[in-house]
Amino acid sequence: MDLRGQLKIKPDRLMRDLRDLAKIGKLTTGVSRTSLSNADLEARHWLLKRMADAGLKSTIDTVGNVHGQINTDAKSVIIGSHTDSVPVGGWLDGSLGVIYGLEIARTVLEAGYENTIGIHAISFMDEEGTYLACLGSRKFCQELSDDEIADGQNPAGEQLAHALDRAGLTSNPEIFLDSNAHIAYLEAHIEQGPRLEAERKAIGIVTGIVGIRRFRLEIRGEADHAGTVPMSMRKDAGTAAIRFSHRFLETVEGCKGADSVWNVGFVNFEPGAANVVPAKAELLYEIRDLDAVVLDRMESAIHDLCETANQTGLLQYEITKTIDITPSAMDSALSNNILDAAKNIGSPHMMMPSGAGHDAMVFARHIPSAMLFIPSIKGKSHSEAEDTSEKDIIVGCQVLAGSIEGIFST
Amino acid sequence: MDLRGQLKIKPDRLMRDLRDLAKIGKLTTGVSRTSLSNADLEARHWLLKRMADAGLKSTIDTVGNVHGQINTDAKSVIIGSHTDSVPVGGWLDGSLGVIYGLEIARTVLEAGYENTIGIHAISFMDEEGTYLACLGSRKFCQELSDDEIADGQNPAGEQLAHALDRAGLTSNPEIFLDSNAHIAYLEAHIEQGPRLEAERKAIGIVTGIVGIRRFRLEIRGEADHAGTVPMSMRKDAGTAAIRFSHRFLETVEGCKGADSVWNVGFVNFEPGAANVVPAKAELLYEIRDLDAVVLDRMESAIHDLCETANQTGLLQYEITKTIDITPSAMDSALSNNILDAAKNIGSPHMMMPSGAGHDAMVFARHIPSAMLFIPSIKGKSHSEAEDTSEKDIIVGCQVLAGSIEGIFST
Repeated sequence: MDLRGQLKIKPDRLMRDLRDLAKIGKLTTGVSRTSLSNADLEARHWLLKRMADAGLKSTIDTVGNVHGQINTDAKSVIIGSHTDSVPVGGWLDGSLGVIYGLEIARTVLEAGYENTIGIHAISFMDEEGTYLACLGSRKFCQELSDDEIADGQNPAGEQLAHALDRAGLTSNPEIFLDSNAHIAYLEAHIEQGPRLEAERKAIGIVTGIVGIRRFRLEIRGEADHAGTVPMSMRKDAGTAAIRFSHRFLETVEGCKGADSVWNVGFVNFEPGAANVVPAKAELLYEIRDLDAVVLDRMESAIHDLCETANQTGLLQYEITKTIDITPSAMDSALSNNILDAAKNIGSPHMMMPSGAGHDAMVFARHIPSAMLFIPSIKGKSHSEAEDTSEKDIIVGCQVLAGSIEGIFST
Repeated sequence: MDLRGQLKIKPDRLMRDLRDLAKIGKLTTGVSRTSLSNADLEARHWLLKRMADAGLKSTIDTVGNVHGQINTDAKSVIIGSHTDSVPVGGWLDGSLGVIYGLEIARTVLEAGYENTIGIHAISFMDEEGTYLACLGSRKFCQELSDDEIADGQNPAGEQLAHALDRAGLTSNPEIFLDSNAHIAYLEAHIEQGPRLEAERKAIGIVTGIVGIRRFRLEIRGEADHAGTVPMSMRKDAGTAAIRFSHRFLETVEGCKGADSVWNVGFVNFEPGAANVVPAKAELLYEIRDLDAVVLDRMESAIHDLCETANQTGLLQYEITKTIDITPSAMDSALSNNILDAAKNIGSPHMMMPSGAGHDAMVFARHIPSAMLFIPSIKGKSHSEAEDTSEKDIIVGCQVLAGSIEGIFST
């Protein structure tokens, strides 16, 4: 059966739901719905009711993931994202992909394809990591150990287990990924970057989610009076940090891949006074790329820099890797499905990596997964300034619906 | 009258006084005698009594400067330094020069030259700047306005005026420099650096006290997600700070003078997270040299760097000069006097700048002034690790006594 053109989403209904959801935990233009906060729980119960009202089989599970399903006996596609936010977040980050799932399930029901198309719409708990990043998707995919849940706590020091109990979730059913029934994972998300806007594309088809490696560099020298000790007699950790970081920038530029990005986001000198030669410097370097080979090459170059620097013996340089997240490739057949859907409605589109992490990163380890991005105005996210035009929001949902048509066409 | 060889200081008495003074506010090996603390006041009253016991006309003035004079009717040489310390300081920083003054006055009396040689020994208040740097010497030289005293406060927030009142000093006499009677200022001090030790010299004759210019650099860019924004689209204040500082180091190296030193002692990135492109960087640069022409050249090069950096227009660079201390030349005739005294007793010596500030900096603006340094073991100061060998302490005092012989020989 060729389903192309059969699923027509309802723009007004989509926008109304997004705007209603944005009222929960509303700030000025953004939202504050950190995981398991009152606002987050209110949003999840609102969603549960919206799903039930629309005729979906709706459930909230033991970690607060909200599920809405149609055609549960058949193979189904998961359409997921998250309704929790960072402390001062935007109205679309996560919510967009969740409401897309609801809207597409409703559209399937309205179009009378409830026996042909299986949809499992989910809002995952705590993608933003208030307690534990990607808590909900990792629990759903059975990646989470009891120890990890026991260790989870929020910045205010509340234990995750206590928070789940407080939210009345612990006696709810557990719901897991079923790799026989779940044939694909789709996630739509705002880009959180400036590329689609700059290239005037409405749709980004995500090739993969970058791997992240983070390094802490510590340089130990000796504190000295910055007036009385000649330059040649100093063990100056500050000057060393500037020189090393300059070489770091040149080195990663020299061995980067097409999608590589890097950052020196933190630096501190001790004791940190204008008239004291720094005894110690601490820096955080981060590198990201889709390709583990590129990351290996960059990492190896950083270790070489450190070894060379240590050879003078005057100061001690120590590099420690503090984060190592593997790149996640998206499924190419599934991505082509999104590409076709964008072409079918004549929407300008581009292939691009995701520089940020998403629940799709977890799913890519288990079932074919793909993502689509819609533009973020001025590339803003994790801020109240985050926004996307109504037109782009509507096009994104229609393209995602188009990819569902493609998947279930035979 | 040729006085050469007439003043023989008493090493045991000198060392006993230094060690007794070091018991007041004693830590493990160092002292804590911040200005107007109980320990500082106890030390000043101990000194007042030591001076009186030795036959000096002793007075404590309205800001806590302790004065001990012999031959008050004649021309006199001021021998001064300070008995206050930094919070965790060494036992000789300041105290050395003060006890030298006491020892030399006693030696003059013992040698029967009280009608030939005039000595005015002083311990100045707050050279270290707990309330107001060089408070005592600036008050004595009438450089201090009532407003400055009213504004002075310590890090705990105590007003200077309140502290002087608490110490019972306010009704004491005011004592000022008399440029008719005071013919010279001499100050002996530990080097607070490693040069004399490295060059195996017992005496440093100070050519001048370096000028200090301090600059605050602020770079304003834009915060961005360190994963989603391509390198070419960032306004990265962190990368800019590393590149600018690297050029700063190359530039000052390229236009330095023989005695120039510089420091990048403080740096901060905002928001300061590994995964956020820095929106703002703040750095403190300091340059020091004896020669204002060299400082001008360096400062001009720094402003050129800033202007060039601003020409791209992507980020804003702003340089603000926060400190500008003029270099203080020491009096060459007086310095030659110290040089002759060192030669006369066969002591290895060298000419050198002072990279740190001293009360002599204030006096150089009013009367001929000179300084001598003795070695600091491993160059340590402003720390309990500060120390000098007994032998070097004794040689320093004898050389200073020799320079007094020279000044009053006719």
